[in-house]
Amino acid sequence: MNSAALPNDTIVAPATPNGVGAIHLIRLSGPQAIALTAKYFKGSGPATSSAGQSARIKTSGGRFDLRKSKARRLYYGQLLDDNQQLLDEVVVSLYRAPASYTGEDTVEISCHGSPFISQAVVQLFIRAGARLAEPGEFSQRAFLNGKMDLSQTEAVADLIASQSAAAHRMALHQLKGGVSDAIGELRQKLIDFASLIELELDFAEEDVEFADRTELMQLVESIRTRIADLQKSFALGNAIKNGIATVIAGRPNAGKSTLLNALLQEERAIVSEVAGTTRDTIEEILNIEGVAFRLIDTAGIREASDKVEAIGVERTLAKVQESRILLYVYDVIATSPEQLAEDLNALYQEDTALLVVANKMDLNPYTSYDHYFGEEVPPSRWSVPYDNFVPIIAKKQANLDFLKERLYALGVGQDWQENDLILSNARHYAALQRADEDLEKVLSGMSVGVTSDFIAMDIRAALHHLGEIAGTVSTDDLLSNIFSKFCIGK
Amino acid sequence: MNSAALPNDTIVAPATPNGVGAIHLIRLSGPQAIALTAKYFKGSGPATSSAGQSARIKTSGGRFDLRKSKARRLYYGQLLDDNQQLLDEVVVSLYRAPASYTGEDTVEISCHGSPFISQAVVQLFIRAGARLAEPGEFSQRAFLNGKMDLSQTEAVADLIASQSAAAHRMALHQLKGGVSDAIGELRQKLIDFASLIELELDFAEEDVEFADRTELMQLVESIRTRIADLQKSFALGNAIKNGIATVIAGRPNAGKSTLLNALLQEERAIVSEVAGTTRDTIEEILNIEGVAFRLIDTAGIREASDKVEAIGVERTLAKVQESRILLYVYDVIATSPEQLAEDLNALYQEDTALLVVANKMDLNPYTSYDHYFGEEVPPSRWSVPYDNFVPIIAKKQANLDFLKERLYALGVGQDWQENDLILSNARHYAALQRADEDLEKVLSGMSVGVTSDFIAMDIRAALHHLGEIAGTVSTDDLLSNIFSKFCIGK
Repeated sequence: MNSAALPNDTIVAPATPNGVGAIHLIRLSGPQAIALTAKYFKGSGPATSSAGQSARIKTSGGRFDLRKSKARRLYYGQLLDDNQQLLDEVVVSLYRAPASYTGEDTVEISCHGSPFISQAVVQLFIRAGARLAEPGEFSQRAFLNGKMDLSQTEAVADLIASQSAAAHRMALHQLKGGVSDAIGELRQKLIDFASLIELELDFAEEDVEFADRTELMQLVESIRTRIADLQKSFALGNAIKNGIATVIAGRPNAGKSTLLNALLQEERAIVSEVAGTTRDTIEEILNIEGVAFRLIDTAGIREASDKVEAIGVERTLAKVQESRILLYVYDVIATSPEQLAEDLNALYQEDTALLVVANKMDLNPYTSYDHYFGEEVPPSRWSVPYDNFVPIIAKKQANLDFLKERLYALGVGQDWQENDLILSNARHYAALQRADEDLEKVLSGMSVGVTSDFIAMDIRAALHHLGEIAGTVSTDDLLSNIFSKFCIGK
Repeated sequence: MNSAALPNDTIVAPATPNGVGAIHLIRLSGPQAIALTAKYFKGSGPATSSAGQSARIKTSGGRFDLRKSKARRLYYGQLLDDNQQLLDEVVVSLYRAPASYTGEDTVEISCHGSPFISQAVVQLFIRAGARLAEPGEFSQRAFLNGKMDLSQTEAVADLIASQSAAAHRMALHQLKGGVSDAIGELRQKLIDFASLIELELDFAEEDVEFADRTELMQLVESIRTRIADLQKSFALGNAIKNGIATVIAGRPNAGKSTLLNALLQEERAIVSEVAGTTRDTIEEILNIEGVAFRLIDTAGIREASDKVEAIGVERTLAKVQESRILLYVYDVIATSPEQLAEDLNALYQEDTALLVVANKMDLNPYTSYDHYFGEEVPPSRWSVPYDNFVPIIAKKQANLDFLKERLYALGVGQDWQENDLILSNARHYAALQRADEDLEKVLSGMSVGVTSDFIAMDIRAALHHLGEIAGTVSTDDLLSNIFSKFCIGK
């Protein structure tokens, strides 16, 4: 159980997406979940399947009582409204506390997949005394009842929002406790030292040192290294979670659209548009080895020549700044080495990786890497390694596999293993940041020889911030901030 | 069991609407449903709730085997992919033939509500040998396995599409066998007579009459009366199912928009826009006593005077022709009795009911019904009974309850009882129409004294057409035509 006050009311909400489908689920959780359902549910023996499986209902002599029924079973019957009129034929799944998602008594009602019926069922239970669940309230209760830690409930939300295999794997890893475990381990080591230091405070008069200062410094330093690693993984984690921003730029007629179409034609995104995602613009999603790359098309860059500024460069540059990768396409016939260097210089961004794609290679098979990046052309600020120079024929879909391989390498890195722990949650990143600052104070304090009580205070602060990640330490504000971002019904 | 060949493959489809939500359900049905699920499902003891209820899974020593597990239970565990990687934590609902919706072995997999996961699960089973279900294929199997008759499966589709309490009640009534029962009764009586007549054919030489011709004529006539009643109810049934088309017309500034807003403000439709409905234009839905009225706004009608034709009248008239009710609003100050009569004459439609709404009554409290419909004004082709003349003040929301009462009376009729059998399916209407034509031939044949074999032939044709409604008689074409209109997963 967690520290916050446990809820004692019963909540209800649709658990499936809204819309017309075969089945909708309505979920109730709380002390009255079973009693409220029993009030309107006229069971008719064991369930034979989901909503509407048997049109004619044989009611047996003795009235079936859900309240006395076994958990983890399916019950088929009629759901009646306040006037004893049939609302729908349903299947009820019964769970009893604490063996449920929320840890409370829980009922899932499977009804016909009509928004009208689903609403009517929810309203029926609200009239009967249940409360419409707040966003994420089922997961919040799971947390409050100790069924999951905080980072795991966040993983549930990430899992639901995941749009690529990589984002999905990352969320599953976190759901299984990946982040909490790693942090918990660091935290435990620190707690052990903290207790020794707290002990010193009890014996302050005697000026003893139970906690070995050298060992403590080593521990703090190793924790800070671990934190730095985790923080470093955040850029990748965040990119995987949201799709790796890849801006495609080039002069008009370089073949950007042809390339885009060729890439997407080969492997259309499984989910390119999902209701409820917050992206303002719809970008094309390219899926490479389960990782989503958000391909951001740009207007063509025009010749700068004597104009004050090349048209389009500024806007393209703004997009490059927000992206992880710049995929620059040029026409090997129409583009001079000087123009190429000029474009690359104009689009230079320190933190963005560059992939130079030489298109229309069939028209000029003699074009080579050396020709464009040898000593005879003006140097670009971007040092382009050979691997990041990809000759293609977009129209004939030639060499696109190598292009994707390079994109993947630039976006994800060669050495990321599926089971590597990657940080993908900005809240966790911020908490680690604060913990790291506390630990830095511990180190600097020790180096100038401050007293144990100062060291203890900084360690306590670090423990607090590390504890926020799994929710070992939590406040109402923190919780409501996290769960308000969930969807209703989860 | 029905006559068509029984399917022997296993189908899979998402059963819940697409989109992001807490839970998605994927349903498998067919002989391999349980074996295929068992292949990827790593159970971990009894289910404690839906997707993701317990983040850490304790695998017990002995491997759990879904194939040997009891039906009508919930099983919690991990769903692995082809590479033994965790795809999601799921709850499996198990049903065994024939005790399922389809009558086949059925598994429902409750996973986290992400379109990505849902797609991945469906694809996993397709790779394993299941087939993506066609629209309505689960219901079609329920029909083929004798779990439901044809009109009941249609009721399932209507239930899912229902957007008002009345449409919902009508679909439930049909699901419980309302239409089939009524038709089945008529059909049985006819079968009894048919067998007597067929018997006569066996004794044709002897010129006997086992079937009393007078009784037969009485029966056929009573069946035709019942058919006529059912057919008559179709206009109402269809209107309730799709919402009662109500066109609002009037001159500019008559207060149409104010009235529309006032009506909708009082009771907004529960579902005004639902994904998947086929309506081209979005109309406002007004819910009166659970019946949906589709309020169709029109551009104002302009003064005809010396112009060739009043602007807007033609377009409005086209909408009136498609509507059950014309709600004509006029400004009691600005409209002369002659103008009123002119508008009503111009909009006259024989099959459309008229409600005349006199607006802005607060400005001219002396305006009365008699004043506008007495002898001193040109007569309208529409004879407006007192009840269909409603004085209101839209701005002050005065007398709107009476207006809605009158709308309901015009749209539904005063004497419709909730449990009255109403025909709402165009296919049923057409089948009844054909059966009626057959029965007419029976009567005319008998009246001119044709031989028994002709009478028998016409009775057989009538039985065939009546049998189509419940699917007692069905063809592959008929079935595919019906089920192709279902959603996938049902």
